[in-house]
Amino acid sequence: MLCVGLDPDVAKLPSSIASQPDPLFTFNKAIIDATADLVSVYKPNTAFYEGLGADGVKQLKQTCEYIQQNYSGIPILLDFKRGDIGNTNNYYAEYAFEYLGVDAITVHPYFGQEASEAFLAYKEKGIVILCRSSNPGAGEFQDLEVDGKKLYRIVAEAVMNKWNENKNCLLMIGSPYPEELAEVRQALGDDVTFLIPGIGAQGGDVEATVKAGVNSKGTGVMISASRSVIFAGNGEDFAEAARAEAIKLRDEINKYR
Amino acid sequence: MLCVGLDPDVAKLPSSIASQPDPLFTFNKAIIDATADLVSVYKPNTAFYEGLGADGVKQLKQTCEYIQQNYSGIPILLDFKRGDIGNTNNYYAEYAFEYLGVDAITVHPYFGQEASEAFLAYKEKGIVILCRSSNPGAGEFQDLEVDGKKLYRIVAEAVMNKWNENKNCLLMIGSPYPEELAEVRQALGDDVTFLIPGIGAQGGDVEATVKAGVNSKGTGVMISASRSVIFAGNGEDFAEAARAEAIKLRDEINKYR
Repeated sequence: MLCVGLDPDVAKLPSSIASQPDPLFTFNKAIIDATADLVSVYKPNTAFYEGLGADGVKQLKQTCEYIQQNYSGIPILLDFKRGDIGNTNNYYAEYAFEYLGVDAITVHPYFGQEASEAFLAYKEKGIVILCRSSNPGAGEFQDLEVDGKKLYRIVAEAVMNKWNENKNCLLMIGSPYPEELAEVRQALGDDVTFLIPGIGAQGGDVEATVKAGVNSKGTGVMISASRSVIFAGNGEDFAEAARAEAIKLRDEINKYR
Repeated sequence: MLCVGLDPDVAKLPSSIASQPDPLFTFNKAIIDATADLVSVYKPNTAFYEGLGADGVKQLKQTCEYIQQNYSGIPILLDFKRGDIGNTNNYYAEYAFEYLGVDAITVHPYFGQEASEAFLAYKEKGIVILCRSSNPGAGEFQDLEVDGKKLYRIVAEAVMNKWNENKNCLLMIGSPYPEELAEVRQALGDDVTFLIPGIGAQGGDVEATVKAGVNSKGTGVMISASRSVIFAGNGEDFAEAARAEAIKLRDEINKYR
């Protein structure tokens, strides 16, 4: 159930990596080789690649190809948090599903189901709708009450009860909000799968997150850590440090299921 | 007040362009040269470039550089509709403001002000918050009522009254919704500037849009057309056709101010 975020923040790369060609890809390759037997899904976030422009996007593609060629059993979730009108979303879908060939994406709910059909129509792909984000200020709009229900809950219900005709919808709820997570799990039942970011660097607690998130079978969650795993060490042994942290986190998740 | 969307949909490029190297950039260059004396801002949407991956992003940068070097008085609004947690948004800001060097961006409101500070902190840049989108299904969440006020209105007020400390916030409201546009103009007064997409291909009406959108001085709007201008013709004379359509639209906007 461990999801590792491949967010190779260029400012934090070990110096032995930063000086090499294709440093983002070189870093990712080492992290992937060190953790592939421990993770259920890899989640690259586009921001950390696009910050370097075309060259970064090239390294994002190299990263996806490396996983696909060497660890084809591990799905890739592209965390790109896009959302536009339908005609435009077709091209974001092309970026994700054709150019990069990933298995799932994250999508903003604000434009509604009609605009999101461009993504939802990919029946074999996972569409993770942003429901409750992991940042401290998430509640500004997400906690607004509409007829006694908060907006994140309304989004969750709309997605799972209406948008989900192809049974390819998932929900993102941040681990710093275990109460909201438990509430949505209870409201929507066992069939929902949650992407849960915010463990580690953002302060989410593993025990509270797992207990709030899992369904009655002890499954239905992808618990995602990025910085706390991939930057666990910053010396020559950064990959071993990442592996040690991933083992610790995986074991902790399994302990509380 | 005319904003032209540089959305070089690869499926619609004239055949004389599609066969050339860097076809998106080559197309844009012709459109820019044909319309630069008519527009107040160019608005490339990242989707149409990212659909081609790293090569598309390279052509997006070429397009921005071409405008900056040849028409430095015309600002570039990058329509990228991003929105993540703060740490991640720093890298999207880098993509837009450092790598591409654009003057403004579009941003999703869902994660709230705290996450958006990474963008808002760029005091000299314009931050356009998505308020009411132009798609037919925009109302699914945006029309939900919170204490008698619809969500798009709450977003509009939060942005202009709270997020706008650096006086660099603008709002996006789609032209197919002139009533919502007039309501927000009336509620927030003369100082708000609207980005108004959806004219042309999406069916927005120029007269209704201009009358609903302008402030008491007849200004405060950027009225944006993409497909209807840049794909006005698809033969050898596509640039002249785009120019003719841009003149028509500019004159129509000025007529109703």
